[in-house]
Amino acid sequence: MVHAMTALDDATALTRESELDFSVEVSDAWSIGPIPNGGYLMALGAKALGALLDHPDPLTVTARYARPATPGPAEVRCEIIKRGRTQSAAVAKIVQGGKERLRVTGTFGDLGAASGPTLEPSAPPTLADVASITPRVGAPMKSSFADRVEIRFQPGTTDFLDGKTGPMELGGYIRLTGGPEPDPLVLLLLADAFPPPVLRGIEARVWVPTIELTVHVRRRPSPGWVRGWFTTSHLVDGALEEDGRLWDADGRLVAISRQYAQLAG
Amino acid sequence: MVHAMTALDDATALTRESELDFSVEVSDAWSIGPIPNGGYLMALGAKALGALLDHPDPLTVTARYARPATPGPAEVRCEIIKRGRTQSAAVAKIVQGGKERLRVTGTFGDLGAASGPTLEPSAPPTLADVASITPRVGAPMKSSFADRVEIRFQPGTTDFLDGKTGPMELGGYIRLTGGPEPDPLVLLLLADAFPPPVLRGIEARVWVPTIELTVHVRRRPSPGWVRGWFTTSHLVDGALEEDGRLWDADGRLVAISRQYAQLAG
Repeated sequence: MVHAMTALDDATALTRESELDFSVEVSDAWSIGPIPNGGYLMALGAKALGALLDHPDPLTVTARYARPATPGPAEVRCEIIKRGRTQSAAVAKIVQGGKERLRVTGTFGDLGAASGPTLEPSAPPTLADVASITPRVGAPMKSSFADRVEIRFQPGTTDFLDGKTGPMELGGYIRLTGGPEPDPLVLLLLADAFPPPVLRGIEARVWVPTIELTVHVRRRPSPGWVRGWFTTSHLVDGALEEDGRLWDADGRLVAISRQYAQLAG
Repeated sequence: MVHAMTALDDATALTRESELDFSVEVSDAWSIGPIPNGGYLMALGAKALGALLDHPDPLTVTARYARPATPGPAEVRCEIIKRGRTQSAAVAKIVQGGKERLRVTGTFGDLGAASGPTLEPSAPPTLADVASITPRVGAPMKSSFADRVEIRFQPGTTDFLDGKTGPMELGGYIRLTGGPEPDPLVLLLLADAFPPPVLRGIEARVWVPTIELTVHVRRRPSPGWVRGWFTTSHLVDGALEEDGRLWDADGRLVAISRQYAQLAG
Protein backbone atom coordinates (compact mmCIF):
# COMPACT_ATOMS: atom_id res chain seq x y z
CA MET A 1 0.00 0.00 0.00
CA VAL A 2 1.37 3.42 -0.92
CA HIS A 3 0.57 6.33 1.33
CA ALA A 4 1.86 9.85 1.83
CA MET A 5 4.58 10.36 4.43
CA THR A 6 2.93 10.57 7.81
CA ALA A 7 4.09 11.77 11.22
CA LEU A 8 4.68 8.11 12.11
CA ASP A 9 6.88 7.59 9.06
CA ASP A 10 8.88 10.65 10.10
CA ALA A 11 9.22 9.45 13.66
CA THR A 12 10.40 5.97 12.65
CA ALA A 13 12.73 6.89 9.77
CA LEU A 14 15.68 4.52 10.14
CA THR A 15 19.10 5.06 8.59
CA ARG A 16 20.99 1.86 7.88
CA GLU A 17 24.49 2.06 9.37
CA SER A 18 25.60 -1.53 8.84
CA GLU A 19 24.14 -4.97 8.28
CA LEU A 20 22.48 -5.04 11.71
CA ASP A 21 22.59 -1.44 12.90
CA PHE A 22 20.49 1.62 12.31
CA SER A 23 20.47 5.17 13.56
CA VAL A 24 17.26 7.04 14.27
CA GLU A 25 16.06 10.30 15.73
CA VAL A 26 13.65 9.54 18.57
CA SER A 27 10.83 12.00 17.97
CA ASP A 28 9.49 14.53 20.45
CA ALA A 29 6.12 14.41 18.67
CA TRP A 30 4.91 11.17 20.35
CA SER A 31 5.50 11.98 24.01
CA ILE A 32 3.39 11.84 27.15
CA GLY A 33 4.73 14.78 29.09
CA PRO A 34 8.46 14.73 28.30
CA ILE A 35 8.72 10.94 27.76
CA PRO A 36 8.37 9.25 24.35
CA ASN A 37 5.38 6.88 24.45
CA GLY A 38 6.17 3.20 24.92
CA GLY A 39 3.98 2.05 22.05
CA TYR A 40 5.72 4.46 19.69
CA LEU A 41 9.10 3.10 20.81
CA MET A 42 7.89 -0.48 20.34
CA ALA A 43 6.75 0.36 16.79
CA LEU A 44 10.15 1.97 16.14
CA GLY A 45 11.99 -1.17 17.23
CA ALA A 46 9.61 -3.44 15.34
CA LYS A 47 10.14 -1.40 12.18
CA ALA A 48 13.87 -2.17 12.41
CA LEU A 49 13.07 -5.86 12.84
CA GLY A 50 10.81 -5.75 9.81
CA ALA A 51 13.61 -4.20 7.76
CA LEU A 52 15.88 -7.14 8.61
CA LEU A 53 13.50 -10.08 8.40
CA ASP A 54 11.93 -11.66 5.33
CA HIS A 55 8.47 -12.11 6.84
CA PRO A 56 6.10 -9.16 6.63
CA ASP A 57 4.07 -9.26 9.86
CA PRO A 58 4.94 -9.01 13.54
CA LEU A 59 3.18 -11.97 15.25
CA THR A 60 4.35 -11.53 18.82
CA VAL A 61 6.51 -8.65 19.94
CA THR A 62 7.87 -7.91 23.41
CA ALA A 63 9.36 -4.59 24.48
CA ARG A 64 11.31 -4.48 27.72
CA TYR A 65 11.85 -0.95 28.98
CA ALA A 66 15.06 -0.65 30.96
CA ARG A 67 15.41 3.13 31.13
CA PRO A 68 13.32 6.06 29.78
CA ALA A 69 14.23 7.08 26.24
CA THR A 70 14.56 10.75 25.41
CA PRO A 71 13.87 12.63 22.18
CA GLY A 72 17.05 12.80 20.10
CA PRO A 73 19.55 10.53 18.39
CA ALA A 74 19.58 6.82 19.12
CA GLU A 75 21.31 3.72 17.85
CA VAL A 76 19.26 0.64 17.00
CA ARG A 77 21.46 -2.45 17.34
CA CYS A 78 19.92 -5.66 16.08
CA GLU A 79 20.60 -9.36 16.35
CA ILE A 80 18.98 -12.12 14.29
CA ILE A 81 17.61 -14.99 16.40
CA LYS A 82 16.27 -17.15 13.60
CA ARG A 83 15.54 -17.08 9.90
CA GLY A 84 13.01 -19.83 9.28
CA ARG A 85 10.74 -20.80 6.45
CA THR A 86 7.48 -19.67 8.03
CA GLN A 87 8.80 -17.50 10.85
CA SER A 88 11.80 -15.40 11.73
CA ALA A 89 12.83 -13.64 14.90
CA ALA A 90 15.20 -10.87 15.91
CA VAL A 91 15.90 -8.31 18.61
CA ALA A 92 16.45 -4.55 18.36
CA LYS A 93 18.12 -2.68 21.20
CA ILE A 94 17.49 1.04 21.28
CA VAL A 95 20.54 2.70 22.80
CA GLN A 96 21.12 6.32 23.77
CA GLY A 97 24.27 7.68 25.39
CA GLY A 98 25.68 4.16 25.44
CA LYS A 99 22.81 2.88 27.58
CA GLU A 100 20.08 0.50 26.47
CA ARG A 101 16.69 2.21 26.81
CA LEU A 102 14.56 -0.68 25.62
CA ARG A 103 14.84 -3.84 23.59
CA VAL A 104 12.20 -5.03 21.21
CA THR A 105 12.16 -8.76 20.49
CA GLY A 106 9.82 -10.03 17.82
CA THR A 107 8.75 -13.09 15.92
CA PHE A 108 7.55 -12.30 12.42
CA GLY A 109 5.50 -14.36 9.99
CA ASP A 110 2.99 -13.91 7.20
CA LEU A 111 -0.57 -13.34 8.44
CA GLY A 112 -1.76 -13.61 4.87
CA ALA A 113 -0.45 -17.16 4.57
CA ALA A 114 -1.73 -18.45 7.94
CA SER A 115 -4.03 -21.44 7.74
CA GLY A 116 -5.79 -23.53 10.34
CA PRO A 117 -9.00 -23.51 12.34
CA THR A 118 -10.65 -20.36 13.66
CA LEU A 119 -12.74 -20.42 16.84
CA GLU A 120 -13.67 -17.24 18.64
CA PRO A 121 -16.37 -17.49 21.25
CA SER A 122 -16.12 -13.84 22.33
CA ALA A 123 -17.61 -10.82 20.61
CA PRO A 124 -16.19 -7.30 20.41
CA PRO A 125 -17.32 -4.95 23.18
CA THR A 126 -20.53 -3.04 22.67
CA LEU A 127 -19.48 0.57 22.25
CA ALA A 128 -21.53 3.68 21.62
CA ASP A 129 -21.63 4.77 18.00
CA VAL A 130 -18.41 6.66 17.30
CA ALA A 131 -20.24 9.60 15.76
CA SER A 132 -22.26 10.05 18.96
CA ILE A 133 -19.22 10.45 21.21
CA THR A 134 -18.03 13.95 22.01
CA PRO A 135 -14.24 14.12 21.85
CA ARG A 136 -12.71 14.71 25.25
CA VAL A 137 -10.49 17.77 25.06
CA GLY A 138 -7.66 18.51 27.45
CA ALA A 139 -5.24 15.83 28.59
CA PRO A 140 -4.10 15.60 32.22
CA MET A 141 -0.58 16.47 31.07
CA LYS A 142 0.77 18.38 28.07
CA SER A 143 1.42 15.61 25.57
CA SER A 144 2.45 15.80 21.96
CA PHE A 145 1.12 12.23 21.76
CA ALA A 146 -2.40 13.61 22.12
CA ASP A 147 -1.91 15.49 18.85
CA ARG A 148 -1.01 12.28 17.02
CA VAL A 149 -3.74 9.99 18.28
CA GLU A 150 -7.47 10.57 18.27
CA ILE A 151 -9.49 8.76 20.92
CA ARG A 152 -13.26 8.63 21.37
CA PHE A 153 -13.73 7.24 24.87
CA GLN A 154 -16.65 4.96 25.60
CA PRO A 155 -18.98 7.20 27.68
CA GLY A 156 -18.55 6.63 31.39
CA THR A 157 -14.95 5.43 31.27
CA THR A 158 -13.21 8.78 31.77
CA ASP A 159 -14.51 9.52 35.26
CA PHE A 160 -10.91 9.44 36.48
CA LEU A 161 -10.22 12.65 34.56
CA ASP A 162 -12.74 14.29 36.87
CA GLY A 163 -11.24 12.84 40.05
CA LYS A 164 -13.71 9.97 40.42
CA THR A 165 -13.00 6.26 40.72
CA GLY A 166 -14.56 3.31 38.94
CA PRO A 167 -13.75 -0.18 37.70
CA MET A 168 -10.27 -0.56 36.22
CA GLU A 169 -11.34 -0.76 32.59
CA LEU A 170 -11.72 1.69 29.74
CA GLY A 171 -11.82 1.82 26.00
CA GLY A 172 -13.29 3.34 22.91
CA TYR A 173 -12.27 4.16 19.38
CA ILE A 174 -8.79 5.16 18.31
CA ARG A 175 -6.98 6.19 15.13
CA LEU A 176 -3.87 8.09 14.12
CA THR A 177 -4.45 11.73 13.30
CA GLY A 178 -3.50 12.23 9.66
CA GLY A 179 -2.95 8.52 9.13
CA PRO A 180 -1.71 6.06 8.26
CA GLU A 181 -4.61 3.63 8.40
CA PRO A 182 -3.99 0.82 10.88
CA ASP A 183 -1.53 -1.90 9.93
CA PRO A 184 0.31 -4.40 12.14
CA LEU A 185 2.99 -1.84 13.07
CA VAL A 186 0.36 0.76 13.95
CA LEU A 187 -1.42 -1.82 16.14
CA LEU A 188 1.73 -2.14 18.26
CA LEU A 189 1.56 1.58 18.89
CA LEU A 190 -2.19 1.60 19.57
CA ALA A 191 -1.73 -1.15 22.17
CA ASP A 192 -0.10 1.43 24.46
CA ALA A 193 -2.07 4.51 23.48
CA PHE A 194 -5.06 4.56 25.85
CA PRO A 195 -4.61 5.93 29.39
CA PRO A 196 -3.91 3.22 31.99
CA PRO A 197 -7.19 1.76 33.30
CA VAL A 198 -5.62 1.51 36.77
CA LEU A 199 -6.14 5.29 36.99
CA ARG A 200 -9.86 4.60 37.35
CA GLY A 201 -9.18 2.48 40.43
CA ILE A 202 -7.01 4.82 42.42
CA GLU A 203 -7.51 8.43 43.34
CA ALA A 204 -3.93 9.53 42.86
CA ARG A 205 -2.76 10.91 39.53
CA VAL A 206 0.46 9.01 39.11
CA TRP A 207 2.84 7.96 36.39
CA VAL A 208 2.48 4.28 35.40
CA PRO A 209 5.75 3.30 33.71
CA THR A 210 5.69 0.16 31.60
CA ILE A 211 8.34 -2.43 32.42
CA GLU A 212 7.36 -4.95 29.75
CA LEU A 213 4.79 -4.93 26.96
CA THR A 214 3.89 -7.86 24.73
CA VAL A 215 1.56 -7.57 21.76
CA HIS A 216 0.22 -10.42 19.64
CA VAL A 217 -0.95 -9.34 16.19
CA ARG A 218 -3.64 -11.72 15.03
CA ARG A 219 -4.95 -10.22 11.79
CA ARG A 220 -4.12 -7.41 9.40
CA PRO A 221 -6.64 -4.71 10.28
CA SER A 222 -9.18 -3.14 7.95
CA PRO A 223 -9.03 0.64 7.47
CA GLY A 224 -10.98 2.85 9.84
CA TRP A 225 -11.39 3.36 13.58
CA VAL A 226 -9.87 0.67 15.78
CA ARG A 227 -11.86 -0.34 18.86
CA GLY A 228 -9.84 -0.90 22.04
CA TRP A 229 -10.70 -2.23 25.48
CA PHE A 230 -8.19 -2.29 28.35
CA THR A 231 -8.50 -3.80 31.81
CA THR A 232 -6.47 -4.24 34.98
CA SER A 233 -7.57 -7.04 37.30
CA HIS A 234 -4.71 -7.28 39.79
CA LEU A 235 -3.08 -4.20 41.28
CA VAL A 236 -0.80 -5.74 43.92
CA ASP A 237 1.53 -3.59 46.03
CA GLY A 238 1.65 -1.01 43.24
CA ALA A 239 2.38 -3.49 40.42
CA LEU A 240 -0.21 -4.33 37.81
CA GLU A 241 -0.99 -6.00 34.53
CA GLU A 242 -2.84 -4.15 31.78
CA ASP A 243 -4.63 -6.36 29.28
CA GLY A 244 -5.79 -4.92 25.98
CA ARG A 245 -7.73 -6.07 22.97
CA LEU A 246 -8.02 -4.28 19.66
CA TRP A 247 -10.69 -4.89 17.00
CA ASP A 248 -10.76 -3.40 13.53
CA ALA A 249 -13.60 -1.49 11.90
CA ASP A 250 -15.11 -4.79 10.75
CA GLY A 251 -15.29 -6.01 14.35
CA ARG A 252 -12.51 -8.58 13.94
CA LEU A 253 -10.03 -9.03 16.77
CA VAL A 254 -6.70 -7.83 15.38
CA ALA A 255 -4.37 -7.71 18.39
CA ILE A 256 -4.14 -8.48 22.09
CA SER A 257 -1.69 -6.91 24.46
CA ARG A 258 -0.50 -7.26 28.02
CA GLN A 259 1.90 -5.06 29.92
CA TYR A 260 3.52 -5.22 33.33
CA ALA A 261 3.73 -1.80 34.93
CA GLN A 262 4.25 -0.26 38.34
CA LEU A 263 2.78 2.86 39.87
CA ALA A 264 5.57 5.39 40.28
CA GLY A 265 6.32 7.03 43.60
CA MET B 1 14.52 -21.90 52.59
CA VAL B 2 16.56 -25.08 52.72
CA HIS B 3 15.15 -28.12 51.04
CA ALA B 4 16.42 -31.47 49.90
CA MET B 5 17.65 -31.74 46.32
CA THR B 6 14.63 -32.23 44.09
CA ALA B 7 14.19 -33.38 40.52
CA LEU B 8 13.87 -29.73 39.55
CA ASP B 9 17.16 -28.86 41.24
CA ASP B 10 18.78 -31.70 39.30
CA ALA B 11 17.27 -30.57 36.02
CA THR B 12 18.37 -26.95 36.46
CA ALA B 13 21.87 -27.51 37.89
CA LEU B 14 24.01 -24.83 36.26
CA THR B 15 27.78 -24.93 36.02
CA ARG B 16 29.39 -21.50 35.85
CA GLU B 17 31.80 -21.35 32.90
CA SER B 18 32.60 -17.64 32.94
CA GLU B 19 31.17 -14.36 34.21
CA LEU B 20 28.13 -14.60 31.97
CA ASP B 21 28.07 -18.18 30.75
CA PHE B 22 26.87 -21.46 32.17
CA SER B 23 26.67 -25.02 30.98
CA VAL B 24 23.75 -27.26 31.79
CA GLU B 25 22.40 -30.70 30.98
CA VAL B 26 18.87 -30.30 29.61
CA SER B 27 16.97 -33.04 31.39
CA ASP B 28 14.92 -35.79 29.76
CA ALA B 29 12.78 -35.99 32.89
CA TRP B 30 10.56 -32.98 32.08
CA SER B 31 9.48 -33.81 28.54
CA ILE B 32 6.13 -33.99 26.77
CA GLY B 33 6.71 -36.81 24.34
CA PRO B 34 10.35 -36.32 23.30
CA ILE B 35 10.41 -32.52 23.77
CA PRO B 36 11.50 -30.78 26.98
CA ASN B 37 8.56 -28.79 28.35
CA GLY B 38 8.60 -25.04 27.68
CA GLY B 39 7.91 -24.08 31.29
CA TYR B 40 10.80 -26.20 32.48
CA LEU B 41 13.08 -24.49 29.96
CA MET B 42 11.83 -21.07 31.04
CA ALA B 43 12.60 -21.94 34.67
CA LEU B 44 16.05 -23.11 33.62
CA GLY B 45 16.80 -19.82 31.88
CA ALA B 46 15.33 -17.79 34.73
CA LYS B 47 17.52 -19.66 37.21
CA ALA B 48 20.58 -18.47 35.28
CA LEU B 49 19.25 -14.91 35.39
CA GLY B 50 18.71 -15.19 39.13
CA ALA B 51 22.30 -16.35 39.58
CA LEU B 52 23.55 -13.20 37.85
CA LEU B 53 21.22 -10.55 39.23
CA ASP B 54 21.10 -9.07 42.72
CA HIS B 55 17.32 -9.08 43.03
CA PRO B 56 15.66 -12.28 44.22
CA ASP B 57 12.37 -12.50 42.33
CA PRO B 58 11.44 -12.75 38.65
CA LEU B 59 8.76 -10.07 38.07
CA THR B 60 8.16 -10.46 34.35
CA VAL B 61 9.86 -13.11 32.26
CA THR B 62 9.52 -13.79 28.54
CA ALA B 63 10.71 -16.93 26.79
CA ARG B 64 10.91 -16.92 23.03
CA TYR B 65 11.20 -20.39 21.57
CA ALA B 66 13.13 -20.37 18.30
CA ARG B 67 13.79 -24.11 17.88
CA PRO B 68 12.92 -27.19 19.96
CA ALA B 69 15.50 -28.00 22.64
CA THR B 70 16.60 -31.60 23.12
CA PRO B 71 17.73 -33.44 26.24
CA GLY B 72 21.50 -33.19 26.56
CA PRO B 73 24.23 -30.59 26.99
CA ALA B 74 23.48 -26.91 26.43
CA GLU B 75 25.23 -23.61 26.84
CA VAL B 76 23.49 -20.76 28.63
CA ARG B 77 24.88 -17.46 27.40
CA CYS B 78 23.76 -14.40 29.31
CA GLU B 79 23.80 -10.66 28.87
CA ILE B 80 23.03 -8.05 31.52
CA ILE B 81 20.52 -5.43 30.39
CA LYS B 82 20.41 -3.36 33.54
CA ARG B 83 21.50 -3.39 37.16
CA GLY B 84 19.26 -0.92 38.96
CA ARG B 85 18.47 -0.15 42.56
CA THR B 86 15.01 -1.70 42.65
CA GLN B 87 15.12 -3.79 39.47
CA SER B 88 17.57 -5.54 37.24
CA ALA B 89 17.17 -7.28 33.90
CA ALA B 90 19.09 -9.77 31.83
CA VAL B 91 18.74 -12.31 29.04
CA ALA B 92 19.78 -15.97 28.89
CA LYS B 93 20.14 -17.72 25.55
CA ILE B 94 19.98 -21.49 25.67
CA VAL B 95 22.12 -22.83 22.85
CA GLN B 96 22.60 -26.39 21.63
CA GLY B 97 24.77 -27.40 18.68
CA GLY B 98 25.58 -23.75 18.06
CA LYS B 99 21.90 -22.87 17.56
CA GLU B 100 19.75 -20.80 19.88
CA ARG B 101 16.82 -22.91 21.13
CA LEU B 102 15.18 -20.25 23.25
CA ARG B 103 16.00 -17.04 24.99
CA VAL B 104 14.66 -16.07 28.38
CA THR B 105 14.54 -12.36 29.15
CA GLY B 106 13.60 -11.28 32.63
CA THR B 107 13.19 -8.32 34.90
CA PHE B 108 13.87 -9.14 38.52
CA GLY B 109 12.97 -7.27 41.70
CA ASP B 110 12.12 -7.92 45.32
CA LEU B 111 8.50 -8.94 45.86
CA GLY B 112 9.09 -8.71 49.60
CA ALA B 113 9.97 -5.03 49.34
CA ALA B 114 7.13 -3.97 47.01
CA SER B 115 4.86 -1.27 48.33
CA GLY B 116 1.86 0.53 46.93
CA PRO B 117 -1.89 0.08 46.67
CA THR B 118 -3.58 -3.29 46.19
CA LEU B 119 -6.90 -3.56 44.36
CA GLU B 120 -8.19 -6.89 43.11
CA PRO B 121 -11.82 -7.02 42.07
CA SER B 122 -11.70 -10.62 40.92
CA ALA B 123 -11.83 -13.77 43.04
CA PRO B 124 -10.09 -17.11 42.44
CA PRO B 125 -12.10 -19.65 40.45
CA THR B 126 -14.46 -21.90 42.34
CA LEU B 127 -12.92 -25.34 42.12
CA ALA B 128 -14.06 -28.65 43.55
CA ASP B 129 -12.32 -29.64 46.77
CA VAL B 130 -8.96 -31.12 45.83
CA ALA B 131 -9.50 -34.22 47.96
CA SER B 132 -12.70 -34.98 46.05
CA ILE B 133 -11.04 -35.09 42.62
CA THR B 134 -9.96 -38.47 41.27
CA PRO B 135 -6.54 -38.19 39.64
CA ARG B 136 -6.74 -38.67 35.90
CA VAL B 137 -4.34 -41.44 34.93
CA GLY B 138 -2.89 -41.91 31.47
CA ALA B 139 -1.64 -39.00 29.42
CA PRO B 140 -2.37 -38.76 25.68
CA MET B 141 1.37 -39.17 25.01
CA LYS B 142 4.18 -40.83 26.96
CA SER B 143 5.58 -37.94 28.96
CA SER B 144 8.21 -37.91 31.67
CA PHE B 145 6.72 -34.52 32.58
CA ALA B 146 3.62 -36.31 33.87
CA ASP B 147 5.80 -38.02 36.48
CA ARG B 148 7.08 -34.68 37.76
CA VAL B 149 3.83 -32.75 37.99
CA GLU B 150 0.62 -33.78 39.73
CA ILE B 151 -2.59 -32.29 38.40
CA ARG B 152 -6.12 -32.61 39.76
CA PHE B 153 -8.33 -31.39 36.93
CA GLN B 154 -11.49 -29.51 37.72
CA PRO B 155 -14.24 -32.03 36.89
CA GLY B 156 -15.69 -31.51 33.43
CA THR B 157 -12.62 -29.90 31.89
CA THR B 158 -10.94 -33.04 30.54
CA ASP B 159 -13.64 -34.03 28.05
CA PHE B 160 -11.07 -33.57 25.28
CA LEU B 161 -9.18 -36.62 26.57
CA ASP B 162 -12.29 -38.60 25.66
CA GLY B 163 -12.64 -37.09 22.21
CA LYS B 164 -15.31 -34.53 23.11
CA THR B 165 -15.23 -30.77 22.60
CA GLY B 166 -16.10 -27.97 25.00
CA PRO B 167 -15.23 -24.38 25.82
CA MET B 168 -11.52 -23.56 25.51
CA GLU B 169 -10.79 -23.37 29.22
CA LEU B 170 -9.50 -25.76 31.84
CA GLY B 171 -7.81 -25.81 35.19
CA GLY B 172 -7.49 -27.38 38.56
CA TYR B 173 -4.85 -27.99 41.19
CA ILE B 174 -1.18 -28.54 40.49
CA ARG B 175 2.02 -29.27 42.41
CA LEU B 176 5.44 -30.75 41.79
CA THR B 177 5.75 -34.43 42.68
CA GLY B 178 8.35 -34.69 45.43
CA GLY B 179 8.63 -30.92 45.74
CA PRO B 180 9.83 -28.33 46.00
CA GLU B 181 6.94 -26.25 47.32
CA PRO B 182 5.99 -23.46 44.90
CA ASP B 183 8.29 -20.45 44.69
CA PRO B 184 8.57 -17.83 41.93
CA LEU B 185 10.78 -20.09 39.79
CA VAL B 186 8.36 -22.99 40.15
CA LEU B 187 5.49 -20.71 39.14
CA LEU B 188 7.22 -20.09 35.80
CA LEU B 189 7.19 -23.82 35.20
CA LEU B 190 3.60 -24.28 36.37
CA ALA B 191 2.46 -21.57 33.93
CA ASP B 192 3.12 -24.00 31.08
CA ALA B 193 2.22 -27.28 32.77
CA PHE B 194 -1.51 -27.75 32.07
CA PRO B 195 -2.61 -29.14 28.70
CA PRO B 196 -3.52 -26.45 26.15
CA PRO B 197 -7.18 -25.43 26.57
CA VAL B 198 -7.45 -25.09 22.79
CA LEU B 199 -7.59 -28.91 22.74
CA ARG B 200 -11.10 -28.66 24.17
CA GLY B 201 -12.20 -26.58 21.20
CA ILE B 202 -10.95 -28.70 18.35
CA GLU B 203 -11.41 -32.37 17.66
CA ALA B 204 -7.91 -33.02 16.37
CA ARG B 205 -5.18 -34.16 18.74
CA VAL B 206 -2.38 -31.89 17.66
CA TRP B 207 0.85 -30.50 18.97
CA VAL B 208 0.60 -26.87 20.12
CA PRO B 209 4.13 -25.46 20.13
CA THR B 210 4.71 -22.29 22.10
CA ILE B 211 6.34 -19.43 20.21
CA GLU B 212 6.44 -16.97 23.09
CA LEU B 213 5.50 -17.20 26.76
CA THR B 214 5.41 -14.34 29.24
CA VAL B 215 4.79 -14.81 32.95
CA HIS B 216 4.29 -12.07 35.53
CA VAL B 217 5.00 -13.19 39.08
CA ARG B 218 2.92 -11.10 41.44
CA ARG B 219 3.46 -12.64 44.87
CA ARG B 220 5.63 -15.28 46.50
CA PRO B 221 3.31 -18.26 46.85
CA SER B 222 2.38 -20.06 50.05
CA PRO B 223 3.16 -23.78 50.29
CA GLY B 224 0.59 -26.27 49.04
CA TRP B 225 -1.45 -26.92 45.92
CA VAL B 226 -1.46 -24.14 43.33
CA ARG B 227 -4.76 -23.47 41.57
CA GLY B 228 -4.55 -22.75 37.85
CA TRP B 229 -7.06 -21.62 35.25
CA PHE B 230 -6.22 -21.36 31.54
CA THR B 231 -8.27 -20.01 28.67
CA THR B 232 -8.04 -19.42 24.94
CA SER B 233 -10.40 -16.84 23.48
CA HIS B 234 -9.10 -16.36 19.95
CA LEU B 235 -8.01 -19.26 17.79
CA VAL B 236 -7.44 -17.54 14.44
CA ASP B 237 -6.13 -19.46 11.42
CA GLY B 238 -4.41 -21.92 13.74
CA ALA B 239 -2.76 -19.29 15.97
CA LEU B 240 -3.90 -18.69 19.51
CA GLU B 241 -3.23 -17.04 22.83
CA GLU B 242 -3.37 -19.01 26.05
CA ASP B 243 -4.01 -16.95 29.18
CA GLY B 244 -3.31 -18.41 32.59
CA ARG B 245 -3.73 -17.40 36.19
CA LEU B 246 -2.23 -19.13 39.19
CA TRP B 247 -3.38 -18.76 42.80
CA ASP B 248 -1.65 -20.14 45.86
CA ALA B 249 -3.17 -22.31 48.57
CA ASP B 250 -4.31 -19.17 50.39
CA GLY B 251 -6.30 -18.10 47.32
CA ARG B 252 -3.98 -15.22 46.47
CA LEU B 253 -3.18 -14.56 42.82
CA VAL B 254 0.53 -15.32 42.45
CA ALA B 255 1.17 -15.26 38.70
CA ILE B 256 -0.45 -14.57 35.35
CA SER B 257 0.77 -15.93 32.06
CA ARG B 258 0.10 -15.54 28.37
CA GLN B 259 1.57 -17.49 25.51
CA TYR B 260 1.37 -17.24 21.75
CA ALA B 261 1.20 -20.67 20.13
CA GLN B 262 0.23 -22.24 16.83
CA LEU B 263 -1.39 -25.55 16.06
CA ALA B 264 1.15 -27.76 14.33
CA GLY B 265 0.47 -29.44 11.03
